[in-house]
Amino acid sequence: MPLVVVLRLGHRVGRDERITTHVGLAARAFGADEIIIAGDRDDAVVESINKVSQQWGGSFKASYTENWVSLVKEWKNNNRAVVHLTMYGLPLQQVIQQLRLEQASRDMLVIVGGPKVRAETYRLADYNVAVTNQPHSEVAALAVFLDWLFAGRELEKIHEGGRMRIIPQPRGKKVVHI
Amino acid sequence: MPLVVVLRLGHRVGRDERITTHVGLAARAFGADEIIIAGDRDDAVVESINKVSQQWGGSFKASYTENWVSLVKEWKNNNRAVVHLTMYGLPLQQVIQQLRLEQASRDMLVIVGGPKVRAETYRLADYNVAVTNQPHSEVAALAVFLDWLFAGRELEKIHEGGRMRIIPQPRGKKVVHI
Repeated sequence: MPLVVVLRLGHRVGRDERITTHVGLAARAFGADEIIIAGDRDDAVVESINKVSQQWGGSFKASYTENWVSLVKEWKNNNRAVVHLTMYGLPLQQVIQQLRLEQASRDMLVIVGGPKVRAETYRLADYNVAVTNQPHSEVAALAVFLDWLFAGRELEKIHEGGRMRIIPQPRGKKVVHI
Repeated sequence: MPLVVVLRLGHRVGRDERITTHVGLAARAFGADEIIIAGDRDDAVVESINKVSQQWGGSFKASYTENWVSLVKEWKNNNRAVVHLTMYGLPLQQVIQQLRLEQASRDMLVIVGGPKVRAETYRLADYNVAVTNQPHSEVAALAVFLDWLFAGRELEKIHEGGRMRIIPQPRGKKVVHI
């Protein structure tokens, strides 16, 4: 299966820890294979995402890149797809069929930024995609994007390994420790 | 049309400003009518969400409640539906048909918490629903929940009024000021 890798731009230490962690955990929960974080180096955030994978299973990995522009260019040189999530882009519902075909045939990089993304990002991306043209949240945009990309099938994903698993309940909490 | 109102529990000043703002903006962008925030009183967060509605249109409203337990009980006494999003609940994809029927026929309160939700919440809710049984983000859970509830139609929603509107572009940014 081709990979879906999330690139989170513009992380700032002392401000974005929780949002970036949520982006990483949403990437994992909604079926992406990996997250790469750019901006300030922040080993604690990378580690906290990887710790969730160790506890809850699956092969999702978080890492940091010093140079995201090179990473995107290399990705393009290798003929892999680059999608940029932005409220200014084309509506998700209009491009989803094309994106599903892309995802079935080649690896896809999904770029999520904050409000101050450089103009370059729009040019580098093969697709600038809006999950609504309203201001909201990179966490929400990524989760809904992945859910559409995988057409809801990611909700059935089993994260193999791990030390904890939830047994769904109509009321209350049931966790098994493996 | 019946209303969909989001109740965000456990807001903490000095820690949750951005996440709660993202929850509120995601609620608005994905078609809910209102958000009510519980926990620490935080007028700045309420105001920043309402300011987005003024700028970008629509009738979405944010407010604060001192006593969310009374609010939920009153909601139930009026025979309105109460849904609690929790990773411990029943999988979204298994209950979505029932929830869509509920939403078509009566107002729905959608409770999102942080990690430390009181046991009472599970008992008060008519439905405890898991958007995956993996740990991720209340922002992601709410957005994907609403997108499923409205079956993607909320992406077409027009937010009437407001002072700004985006004209979707394949590259770059185009905003009209009205």
